[in-house]
Amino acid sequence: MATMSHPLDPISPIEIRKAVALMQACFSPRPIRFKVVDLLEPPKDDVFAWMEDRTQKVDRKARIYYHLDGSPNMGKALVNITKGRIETAEELPDAQGPVDYWEWERVHEACNTHPDVISEIKKLQLPPSAKVVNDPWSFGTDNAEERRRLFQCYMYIVLNDDPEANHYSVPAPFSPVFDAHTLELLWIDRLPLGAGAETVEDMQPWNPVKPVEYAAGVLGESYFRQDLKALQVNQPQGPSFTVRGRNISWQKWNFQLSWNLREGPVLSTVSYDGRSLFYRVSMSEMTVPYGDPRTPYHRKQAFDLGDSGFGLTSNTLSLGCDCLGHIKYFDGYRVASDGQPILMQNVICMHEVDEGIGWKHTNFRNGRSSVVRDRQLVIQCTATVANYEYILAFILDQAANLHIEVRATGIVSTMPVKAGVHTPWGTVVAPGVMAANHQHLFNVRIDPALDGRRNSIVYQDCVPVRDDPKLDPFGCAFKVESTTIQKPGGYDIDLNTSRVYKMINPSRTNAVSGNSVGYKLHAIPSQMIMMGPQSFNFKRGVFASKPIWVTKYKDDELYAAGEFTNQSREDTGLAIWSKRDENVENEDVVLWHTFGLTHVTRPEGKLDFPVMPVEKMMVSLKPTSFFDMNPSNDVPRSNQNLNQSTLVEAKESMCHSKASKI
Amino acid sequence: MATMSHPLDPISPIEIRKAVALMQACFSPRPIRFKVVDLLEPPKDDVFAWMEDRTQKVDRKARIYYHLDGSPNMGKALVNITKGRIETAEELPDAQGPVDYWEWERVHEACNTHPDVISEIKKLQLPPSAKVVNDPWSFGTDNAEERRRLFQCYMYIVLNDDPEANHYSVPAPFSPVFDAHTLELLWIDRLPLGAGAETVEDMQPWNPVKPVEYAAGVLGESYFRQDLKALQVNQPQGPSFTVRGRNISWQKWNFQLSWNLREGPVLSTVSYDGRSLFYRVSMSEMTVPYGDPRTPYHRKQAFDLGDSGFGLTSNTLSLGCDCLGHIKYFDGYRVASDGQPILMQNVICMHEVDEGIGWKHTNFRNGRSSVVRDRQLVIQCTATVANYEYILAFILDQAANLHIEVRATGIVSTMPVKAGVHTPWGTVVAPGVMAANHQHLFNVRIDPALDGRRNSIVYQDCVPVRDDPKLDPFGCAFKVESTTIQKPGGYDIDLNTSRVYKMINPSRTNAVSGNSVGYKLHAIPSQMIMMGPQSFNFKRGVFASKPIWVTKYKDDELYAAGEFTNQSREDTGLAIWSKRDENVENEDVVLWHTFGLTHVTRPEGKLDFPVMPVEKMMVSLKPTSFFDMNPSNDVPRSNQNLNQSTLVEAKESMCHSKASKI
Repeated sequence: MATMSHPLDPISPIEIRKAVALMQACFSPRPIRFKVVDLLEPPKDDVFAWMEDRTQKVDRKARIYYHLDGSPNMGKALVNITKGRIETAEELPDAQGPVDYWEWERVHEACNTHPDVISEIKKLQLPPSAKVVNDPWSFGTDNAEERRRLFQCYMYIVLNDDPEANHYSVPAPFSPVFDAHTLELLWIDRLPLGAGAETVEDMQPWNPVKPVEYAAGVLGESYFRQDLKALQVNQPQGPSFTVRGRNISWQKWNFQLSWNLREGPVLSTVSYDGRSLFYRVSMSEMTVPYGDPRTPYHRKQAFDLGDSGFGLTSNTLSLGCDCLGHIKYFDGYRVASDGQPILMQNVICMHEVDEGIGWKHTNFRNGRSSVVRDRQLVIQCTATVANYEYILAFILDQAANLHIEVRATGIVSTMPVKAGVHTPWGTVVAPGVMAANHQHLFNVRIDPALDGRRNSIVYQDCVPVRDDPKLDPFGCAFKVESTTIQKPGGYDIDLNTSRVYKMINPSRTNAVSGNSVGYKLHAIPSQMIMMGPQSFNFKRGVFASKPIWVTKYKDDELYAAGEFTNQSREDTGLAIWSKRDENVENEDVVLWHTFGLTHVTRPEGKLDFPVMPVEKMMVSLKPTSFFDMNPSNDVPRSNQNLNQSTLVEAKESMCHSKASKI
Repeated sequence: MATMSHPLDPISPIEIRKAVALMQACFSPRPIRFKVVDLLEPPKDDVFAWMEDRTQKVDRKARIYYHLDGSPNMGKALVNITKGRIETAEELPDAQGPVDYWEWERVHEACNTHPDVISEIKKLQLPPSAKVVNDPWSFGTDNAEERRRLFQCYMYIVLNDDPEANHYSVPAPFSPVFDAHTLELLWIDRLPLGAGAETVEDMQPWNPVKPVEYAAGVLGESYFRQDLKALQVNQPQGPSFTVRGRNISWQKWNFQLSWNLREGPVLSTVSYDGRSLFYRVSMSEMTVPYGDPRTPYHRKQAFDLGDSGFGLTSNTLSLGCDCLGHIKYFDGYRVASDGQPILMQNVICMHEVDEGIGWKHTNFRNGRSSVVRDRQLVIQCTATVANYEYILAFILDQAANLHIEVRATGIVSTMPVKAGVHTPWGTVVAPGVMAANHQHLFNVRIDPALDGRRNSIVYQDCVPVRDDPKLDPFGCAFKVESTTIQKPGGYDIDLNTSRVYKMINPSRTNAVSGNSVGYKLHAIPSQMIMMGPQSFNFKRGVFASKPIWVTKYKDDELYAAGEFTNQSREDTGLAIWSKRDENVENEDVVLWHTFGLTHVTRPEGKLDFPVMPVEKMMVSLKPTSFFDMNPSNDVPRSNQNLNQSTLVEAKESMCHSKASKI
């Protein structure tokens, strides 16, 4: 029983080659530039049929974004790899696809080498050792008529040769805008340097500042704290998980570890102790609208999954850096512009961690304790989207909880500011550098299949029983009011009633509690998008305006803001799907949760510069009346024989001077 | 430089003996029963003076609760141990002190042996091997005139000899009420078994059920999952901390690890990199009102710090069970009724953990990454309050964040229920057993001293700029509105504006950002107490009605609901202190945060029985403009040389059958 194939396996390099060959054969001799060749997931019906009977054949298909004949219009093709045929292929003149590396590099190069840009740089009168680099940003829509593919290039000055020199600490005060197809320089924006939108027409010589660096090579050995001692994690018996292809078993969990360029890791066909829980759990979208109204910053609104992709931008992870302990890695594949598969090594790491005490009870009459530790399985990736990093993790535990964790880190997006100026739109994080306030609004998509496909979404409010002297003579009672959602839509969280959203299977009753079996969503209550309904920011990311969304399942409705977010003018995802007049009760239903953080770099900002310490957010899915008892009751009790913990001796903990250098 | 003494050191056994001897000498020959002998913390002025000049003498004092001559009235004495004199000693006929073990055991024994109780038990016609035990509960006030000291004894049936037999799975349907002073049985409550308040007058024979057990001895070896492999944490170079007496240094942090019977561990005189941060951070109170109006359950409202104490009920922790890795333990002391000090071993554990990635950035141009891991210092205790456990931890990290984490675990409080009955007040968690809905409302007290004692509390709201076409032509701008709190009071959280409360030092400006140096509170937005203002539940725990409280510092104002909570009729803490008309801006100010969870065991409950998996809550204090840059910029980069991580080989992770037995 070696590698098992599964209909939701990531696309393989062989499959990429087949799909590309089919396309090339079809359109020969016209040249095709490939942007994306990735798995088109099969219809859910087919996957369920296959799970019932594994001899069922499920066709493998690819979703392809491409440009034919150098056309500025992107094409989209759906290719049946198994049957060797192209199912559809059409140009989408109105859609802008995600960024691909080939395109990005061409824009980057065009900007770096354009005489007008070079001429602007000259005006800065930089020291001879300085270099200027640029980050081509996706161009947030501010004009419904715009159809060109635009990139706003933000310029930065690199002041030393270290490969980790922090150019974000030295932003230059101008920003060229390029057409990615013609590679034409359209115009150069001067960046505002004061509180208002006014800009300087003439470039001034650069006012030297010392960049704030994080590069160990620049900081030098003596910069670092010397008293951090090693902490190592060992699993002498090996891991507790089993890997067969992309199928993972761990502590009664079983799931398929999918991966794609857009979403990164995805958990599919998730079960616990043989019972179906979720068909698919994924990070569906993330938008970052900036709250700085000064042109061109009003155009900053990244959709980091739709515009580029958490998979495409995933780092190659390495032992001892990103992952501590006993680690299993998984690879991914993307395509070159000519369709050749390119290996993306170690884009996912998987390992076990000890998260402290999982449960404990002491019989105080005799002091006897039972302790179970909270062993977790962490499946993690790191996406670098230019200046910023997102660490996305799916975390399973032995109490049958599934957590989705996001850590935001990396370098805040910076802009130049005049010395002494403080704007209402951000914080000065270093001399001459400002970081603008922004929001990060994520959406997690949860496709439940709790003991079967037909589920309902229910919300429950805790409300006091008031003024009912017969029922509640002492005024202490509260009750739970339950509402079953019947129609798709956006729904609210209410902290004042501890509102909880649950996925239940109304056909399955828990014998002990008498309630329907279910899982509840531990949501992250967050401020929703602040931009008003008339703004493009809002229209493009309607999903970010409500914390909870419910839709009826349809194949290929995976992305909260729709398939194409780059320069989008409207949300073609939840904004549309949630308006359908259809029943979602006891149906194939999908729950979506929008959460995030308002990153006010001023004044509550933390001066998280140069690199910001992680800001963690965790969404949890927890069983509610799904099991007959605590599902971790059978976890072996914590014991010293296995844990081999050690006592700090009084002397040892005082030997500060013995601290070894790290 | 061995043990250093500090004015905030916990009381020592020698000091206990001295204080007790002073009391005994003073009142001789009258017998004294001691309830509590603990440190009375010195005035803050004295501690600050001592920190300026360590030759300053700060008197050591004890706070003593006692009963003289067997009086039902508790006395309170303040004893100056250093000067050898009793400063005050008075009877408090109107206050009920916390439970002490001596008293608890006497009530327990009186209930177990009372002929009327035995006669009730007989009516249950239990099998000969069964035993009945009782949990004396503090008696929640339902009558303002009551002055007796009452305990409500909840009765449970123990069906096997295992020391961890789960009697909470078999509650008996009656509950005697005792006077703790006279040990008189006052009455016996019959417990309601249906949805309404009606009870059965005649005891019926017990209807046999199988208890739901967590005891490994009862479950047997074959019950446990077999595939959990060992995970061990080693620190071959020893810990990164230094301990001198109760003074701890770790990664630029320095603090005094205080401890007392009421609060358990307390962090005092906390500094980072030599700069003062907090004078004192502590868990101040916790109340658990139950939402079940059926008598006698309406009386269930524990104040687990004031009624008993997180220190007093702290477990003795042990290597490999409660703590994984390289561990340092600290002891505490309580007194016997005769005043003898009793050692409470290992009531605090301290160790380092790796919490994943602390920050990361990859230069996507060349793939070069810097990763810093999130090393944390965890200071933890476990309090067992009869059926329930609270795991309280203070967690420090290298980015200068201070986290206060609570894990709720243990066994939910149970009551008998008729077969087939489902009440609106809780969930049936096992046959014949219900767990009532309740709230856990904690209060954390934060006494800031950010670069000095005079600080202010400010809250900030993020609000969109709307309808200002000149300032915000594209409708994307948002700004931060800041309000400085001038008067004490209770304040609200507003998620829709991402409201954040900050402690700042208005006299110290961050040179980079131009803002006042500060720390912000990452609050836990929670539903506040649901019981109405007319209820005793509310009156006793006014602190639980608002998430944020601000007061001006006064010595000995430490406990959110006041000093005496047992059978209290009103909140004598924040309810009073927050009404004083005094300035709190740029003053010695204290910030209090109430948070918690509404534990709806039905219907969103998780069937967390027999022992519930931890429910985690974390409050964080994070720097905001306090430092010039990310304070963890100087943490050595993560590297394999130190971390010694290992790769899971394909073969290894598939060898499921090799799983060793645990």
